[in-house]
Amino acid sequence: MKQEKTPASFRVISGGVTKAAGFKAGGVKAGIKVTGKKDLALLFSEKPCSAAGTFTTNAIRASSVDWCSDLLPSSGIRAIFCNSGCANACTGKRGKEDTEKMATIAAEALGVKKEAVLVASTGVIGKFLPLEKMKAALPSLSGSLSVKNGKEFSTAIMTTDLVKKESAVEAAIGGKQFVIGGCCKGSGMIHPNMATMLAFITTDAAISPARLNKIAKRVVDMTFNNLTVDGDTSTNDMVLVLANGASGVKIESAAALDIFQNALFTVCNDLCKKIAADGEGATKRVEIRVSGAVTEKDAKKAAKAVATSNLTKCALFGNDPNWGRISCAVGYSGAAFSKEKMTILLCGVPVFKNLQPVPFNEKKLHTLLKKKVVEIDIDLGKGKASAIAHTCDFSYDYVKINAEYHT
Amino acid sequence: MKQEKTPASFRVISGGVTKAAGFKAGGVKAGIKVTGKKDLALLFSEKPCSAAGTFTTNAIRASSVDWCSDLLPSSGIRAIFCNSGCANACTGKRGKEDTEKMATIAAEALGVKKEAVLVASTGVIGKFLPLEKMKAALPSLSGSLSVKNGKEFSTAIMTTDLVKKESAVEAAIGGKQFVIGGCCKGSGMIHPNMATMLAFITTDAAISPARLNKIAKRVVDMTFNNLTVDGDTSTNDMVLVLANGASGVKIESAAALDIFQNALFTVCNDLCKKIAADGEGATKRVEIRVSGAVTEKDAKKAAKAVATSNLTKCALFGNDPNWGRISCAVGYSGAAFSKEKMTILLCGVPVFKNLQPVPFNEKKLHTLLKKKVVEIDIDLGKGKASAIAHTCDFSYDYVKINAEYHT
Repeated sequence: MKQEKTPASFRVISGGVTKAAGFKAGGVKAGIKVTGKKDLALLFSEKPCSAAGTFTTNAIRASSVDWCSDLLPSSGIRAIFCNSGCANACTGKRGKEDTEKMATIAAEALGVKKEAVLVASTGVIGKFLPLEKMKAALPSLSGSLSVKNGKEFSTAIMTTDLVKKESAVEAAIGGKQFVIGGCCKGSGMIHPNMATMLAFITTDAAISPARLNKIAKRVVDMTFNNLTVDGDTSTNDMVLVLANGASGVKIESAAALDIFQNALFTVCNDLCKKIAADGEGATKRVEIRVSGAVTEKDAKKAAKAVATSNLTKCALFGNDPNWGRISCAVGYSGAAFSKEKMTILLCGVPVFKNLQPVPFNEKKLHTLLKKKVVEIDIDLGKGKASAIAHTCDFSYDYVKINAEYHT
Repeated sequence: MKQEKTPASFRVISGGVTKAAGFKAGGVKAGIKVTGKKDLALLFSEKPCSAAGTFTTNAIRASSVDWCSDLLPSSGIRAIFCNSGCANACTGKRGKEDTEKMATIAAEALGVKKEAVLVASTGVIGKFLPLEKMKAALPSLSGSLSVKNGKEFSTAIMTTDLVKKESAVEAAIGGKQFVIGGCCKGSGMIHPNMATMLAFITTDAAISPARLNKIAKRVVDMTFNNLTVDGDTSTNDMVLVLANGASGVKIESAAALDIFQNALFTVCNDLCKKIAADGEGATKRVEIRVSGAVTEKDAKKAAKAVATSNLTKCALFGNDPNWGRISCAVGYSGAAFSKEKMTILLCGVPVFKNLQPVPFNEKKLHTLLKKKVVEIDIDLGKGKASAIAHTCDFSYDYVKINAEYHT
């Protein structure tokens, strides 16, 4: 699979987790957030789903992550129950019991087994869940489940996000159509390593849990794992993918698996761009495209080092073509590269070649850097592997948001 | 050697690179910096010195770093010639030639061989050195060399630093005294990995280059390598240590080596604290003390992860006791720890224990966090090794400085 390729066989459509047939969702205010915004979300599948997940590699992980990773991959998942405003992380034994209670109360409201309910939490670390508030809000939440309310689901999972993030594609195999749709949240504490904050993806294609698991891991590795806002890997990250088979499209042949993987990549890549663009304090989205690497791992190392460099990101905020900070980050990334052959382009303008500065029009580049999307192309001059990292610039508002975000 | 121990046998004194006998220095304005501030510094030893250095691990390193690492360890060093305002990094073949020319013009002015001159550069990456300006300023610079002008040396090596950073100790072995004095610069692009920005240390003790090299590496590993301002490892980092033997104190016996190492640690540790306190945009210095680790490497991993966490540092800027971000950083650090036994203290106040929040007086802790020095104590509950990391908080001004710093 080539990165960024969108085959003619599928098209990007609007919609999120309820775009695929057979999924309903909703989001309500339960009073978990002090702001009074929506904070409780529920996704329901009429049919049992194949489900796979990828999870944070942080050694301290929330009990919701444990709950899901214990259950997955599975062929009997019916629902995802998610709250924002409280991460239920670093909450010990009581936190673990609370996660199980979350699954239980949602299961009772939906008339399914608790093992059919995946649970996710996001928000402040070190606080206990207000379970009574959540229980009180469940009747109105389960009563509101609909296709239309998929957008309420996407809204209720937000924390410091400014906009909801949805993405969907429609694809066809053998003349029959299926849909992959998803949503995610994430704005700070974004530096996923195996998975990012919360992303929920649904499809009406039919695929075995094992195949879904394998493809999900591969796609997440190419998308969410190359995304960073601030270099901090969260305790609660997870990407969950549910496939209910409602379209009747079976993902079994090599060709079908390839189309499905491409479609899933498109949705995940698009969600990554949306997280980067809405990164805490971001004024622009930044895409770092590394080519000429010996291995994909090396390409990722270099791309992520640049994406994580505070200095580079402050320069981008200031529209300053400070490519020295980019080459510096590649230098400490640990990726193999050829000093002599390495090249750097900023907004398409060559700035570094043959280990020397390339003269450029500073005014023109300064203006190009003011765009909403900045592209940095780095050729390591050493091989044929590539990778793309997603991030944003680093502004006063990142500091403001995180100095004032109350524990 | 225990960390932070100051044996009765030596005392901290004022002064910098010219405090040890037999060293003279100076600093002048050569017009390299656009601000018109001092930007050219020279240190001279009357006697040939044992010299050792530790250097950046960034794969892209400045030719000044290559020049010094090719020469060291050595027993014939006479001078350090340093400019600020231009890093002479990413400048290819011409940059390499310029570094050699720098050594040559200083050697001519001092009447020594060019191989006796160590060269250092700091400032913007990707610009060529204005050698003519430097050459023109050399007569007044070499004419100004004196013990008193050690402080001019410390001033002329600064870039975004707000204050000059000096440290010195006086120690005695067998009733005979010697001095170790040093200075350094560094405020941004500080995340040393084997060495930090620029630090120059002199001593009048007599020690072989091999012994000095070994001790310098060990001490730098315990001090500068545990220092971070922004997570970016520079292309130009180096710590240089010169020993001219002028005191007549010989560092040979195990006891003498131990005293010397302790004295050098005290100077380097103090310089680290000074860099952290003057980190770009810093409003306070932060010390992260990790104990209970299985290995020192693990202790360092955990301490550096917390020190590098943007989220933790923004919370500290906001005086917010957001310990969840600290435990999160330990979690992704890769260090082995016991979830059950790990404890976190913020300004001496327990906040996390038994994988659960410890209730604390939020107002009181908020006030404690406003101090100029914040201490974070983390016990990993797993072993007996420890480490200390030095950093600062993360403020609007860090972003301002790095968005506006012109390339």
